[in-house]
Amino acid sequence: MNQKVRTAIEPTRAENYPEWYQSVLKAADLAEHSPVRGCMVIKPWGYSVWENIQRVLDAMFKETGHQNAYFPLFIPLSFLEKEAQHVEGFAKECAVVTHHRLEKNKDGKLVPAGELEEPLIVRPTSEMIIGHSFSKWVDSYRDLPLLINQWANVVRWEMRTRMFLRTAEFLWQEGHTAHATAKEAEIETLRMLELYSDFCHRYLAIPVICGEKTAHERFPGAVATYTIEAMMQDRKALQSGTSHFLGQNFAKSCEILFNNEQGEREYAWTTSWGTTTRLIGAMIMTHSDDDGLVLPPRVASAHLVIIPFIHKEETKEEILSYCETLAAELKKTHYDGIPLKVLVDKRDLRSGEKGWSWVKKGIPLRLEIGMREIESGELSLLRRDRPHKEKTTVSREDLADRIPDILQEIQDHLLKKATAFRKQHTVRIDSLTEFNEFFASDEKGGFALCHWNEDPIHEKKVQEDLNVTIRCIPFDMPEEKGRCIFTGEPSSRRVIFAKAY
Amino acid sequence: MNQKVRTAIEPTRAENYPEWYQSVLKAADLAEHSPVRGCMVIKPWGYSVWENIQRVLDAMFKETGHQNAYFPLFIPLSFLEKEAQHVEGFAKECAVVTHHRLEKNKDGKLVPAGELEEPLIVRPTSEMIIGHSFSKWVDSYRDLPLLINQWANVVRWEMRTRMFLRTAEFLWQEGHTAHATAKEAEIETLRMLELYSDFCHRYLAIPVICGEKTAHERFPGAVATYTIEAMMQDRKALQSGTSHFLGQNFAKSCEILFNNEQGEREYAWTTSWGTTTRLIGAMIMTHSDDDGLVLPPRVASAHLVIIPFIHKEETKEEILSYCETLAAELKKTHYDGIPLKVLVDKRDLRSGEKGWSWVKKGIPLRLEIGMREIESGELSLLRRDRPHKEKTTVSREDLADRIPDILQEIQDHLLKKATAFRKQHTVRIDSLTEFNEFFASDEKGGFALCHWNEDPIHEKKVQEDLNVTIRCIPFDMPEEKGRCIFTGEPSSRRVIFAKAY
Repeated sequence: MNQKVRTAIEPTRAENYPEWYQSVLKAADLAEHSPVRGCMVIKPWGYSVWENIQRVLDAMFKETGHQNAYFPLFIPLSFLEKEAQHVEGFAKECAVVTHHRLEKNKDGKLVPAGELEEPLIVRPTSEMIIGHSFSKWVDSYRDLPLLINQWANVVRWEMRTRMFLRTAEFLWQEGHTAHATAKEAEIETLRMLELYSDFCHRYLAIPVICGEKTAHERFPGAVATYTIEAMMQDRKALQSGTSHFLGQNFAKSCEILFNNEQGEREYAWTTSWGTTTRLIGAMIMTHSDDDGLVLPPRVASAHLVIIPFIHKEETKEEILSYCETLAAELKKTHYDGIPLKVLVDKRDLRSGEKGWSWVKKGIPLRLEIGMREIESGELSLLRRDRPHKEKTTVSREDLADRIPDILQEIQDHLLKKATAFRKQHTVRIDSLTEFNEFFASDEKGGFALCHWNEDPIHEKKVQEDLNVTIRCIPFDMPEEKGRCIFTGEPSSRRVIFAKAY
Repeated sequence: MNQKVRTAIEPTRAENYPEWYQSVLKAADLAEHSPVRGCMVIKPWGYSVWENIQRVLDAMFKETGHQNAYFPLFIPLSFLEKEAQHVEGFAKECAVVTHHRLEKNKDGKLVPAGELEEPLIVRPTSEMIIGHSFSKWVDSYRDLPLLINQWANVVRWEMRTRMFLRTAEFLWQEGHTAHATAKEAEIETLRMLELYSDFCHRYLAIPVICGEKTAHERFPGAVATYTIEAMMQDRKALQSGTSHFLGQNFAKSCEILFNNEQGEREYAWTTSWGTTTRLIGAMIMTHSDDDGLVLPPRVASAHLVIIPFIHKEETKEEILSYCETLAAELKKTHYDGIPLKVLVDKRDLRSGEKGWSWVKKGIPLRLEIGMREIESGELSLLRRDRPHKEKTTVSREDLADRIPDILQEIQDHLLKKATAFRKQHTVRIDSLTEFNEFFASDEKGGFALCHWNEDPIHEKKVQEDLNVTIRCIPFDMPEEKGRCIFTGEPSSRRVIFAKAY
């Protein structure tokens, strides 16, 4: 009676969520640990998701008037020190270059040589080095707004790392903009947050929540930090992108000055905003199940795999040639503005084994082709988001027409499911007892919407005691009179508390 | 009589070629020096050329079966040491990370802290770290060939740097492949060289020459290095891409082993190949003139700029609106598979000044629009590759149809011109006197095709004496009996000698 259903991934999410995550990564061949502490290798199946994210976000940035550029990997220590909070925020996790060559010592061992006059920091973020360029590029209000983005690698020497979620080196984009007024910079900050949210909803099928970070959780040196927060299937939050209004802080430390329309010299107002390869971690933990990865079609490494079912050697050639012809035909179809990405799995494996390998890799659609299908012209399509044995029969003639619609159905279904899950695990809590209980048990937990009167003492205390943080002050929360659950003081709105990655 | 023609760039190529190059970069707003020694900032107009190069090369790599992946920025020192020649080749130019945080010392000064047990080298190239992954990915002949590419930044601590041509940090792609046989690896090595050559001819309009490097000029650790060599307008050579057949050297140091079809354990055969942001330097120095940058249309940051000619304030609105409508219309046209990139220059500057700024930025086509053009419907198109005052009149109705053809004419014209220049400065030299004379004078110089009997002593000597190197043993040179110009020994083919970047 109690027999366990066999799943492709072990352990299951319920059994051990962190280990399930590692198993999904491995079974889908997305990434692996490298011999360099905290650094990962992103394998082709995982990297292609990043390429899709880049392609779409890059087009969105360009549509909103941003231009790409590239700035040095290294930041002189003295530059980082120009903004006190900023350097303090990153000092504990900097990779420091101190030498510029290797030399044999007297024991014949290669050691660092050629010590640098000033240590160089491998960029943890580029405000200070980009700010230096901005100070040269901006001279008049006519040069503003300056809207720049960079695709790059960054390094933050994290002590506890987890693939895609927190690694010493990661890939990201960082937007940096300068404006003539505070208002314009604030509009830009929120516009980019909105863009991120839109991207997560429409492409990653992740229903993120937009909001502002508390003072305690702000980017070092920022006036305001905004965030998109997602809920993973273990009900923990994952910060998935941030946008910072930097006021004139960085303009002052980098001397970004301009002549305003009145001819007066003024500091510019700047913003910065970024998303990283962490989005891939968010995608995995939002949609994958106990059989492995589930890829949203709009960012999938491939859309469809054709699996030849060869029962007899004498039909092999006919079946393979049918599959190749079909693949070539389907590649002419478009989904979401790009040609359909179709694979044919010609490996010498049992069909069942092949099928499962694609389930684990999360490909949205599988098409099984044997002699029966060829003769009848009725093909069996299997959707990754539906139970494994459920087949949709589509006639060969209709196939190319139907696939884009089916892919979009999958995309919509994933967002709907993730939204329902988040709603199910989001609760309003008005008493401390209930709050403690909610976060104490592994059975409960999720997003707790609570009144809080902006007291950082209690914010820090729940972090220490329960490992719970304020994820954000959400934008779409209506004003509501209540009392802070910690102090009983009056409060006008609820914030989101959660455990987080 | 001797009055100098005014040029937009000073000095001219003839007056001072290296300074002319820096002036072109600056006038076109392509890049600038950064405060980090030897590192450059690639500005939007320059970076977009790199984006175009990436887009095309990436598609070519994928069409030939390669997949992208990403490997760590850092390489543990012990990994680099596994291949003796390799580490020796890069030891003198390594950025070395020795610490992982910053800490205040007793004087309150921030200093590197948290010394690493093993120094990390910022990748100068990734053979050793990718080889480590390959050793895990390859187990059977069925896993081969393994065809991987990485787009990344690399660091080589060069002492004398020049923007785009030689910088401490640069952007590149590095292909790394593993094969079951030497023959397959050799085919791959040459296939990628051919791909690079094809790309340079068809996109950058640079007529590169394919050939093999001499033993002296090989990549550290390679069995054979192949190169594409271009001739710049100062008649110096620029190595523009390389492809290496690595034999089993790196497979041995990284332990990339596989079971062959006979079930025996064998080392794989590997290759690596790369092109860098140096290609942008090659493009600039091949096509630009004394008025600034000349962009080949297929990699141009933009194809066409519309310049409104506003003589009277009352016609301003009509002219601007005409220009915007025209731009929107032209953006629907395609050239080389992508929508036409059209700009409208609405800046508040004199039209002449605007025109010159676009000449210097190298945009292939300029369209000047005033009331006269609007009324007549006859528009004046100016080509960057033709004399500045030469206008082509095109009727508004034909414009969208004509532009792609005109762009392709420019593209073809640039390649033809560069090929003629290279031919003009390539000579066969059969005596040492003539050889010395050819390279001694600034008036002469170029590619010298000479017999050489593979003696490295004389190869090194001409490098020391004349700063002349063997650029390559060209593929397309017919066998020809002759005598080595240094030794008089019999030789069966000519090689290319030149001064080089």
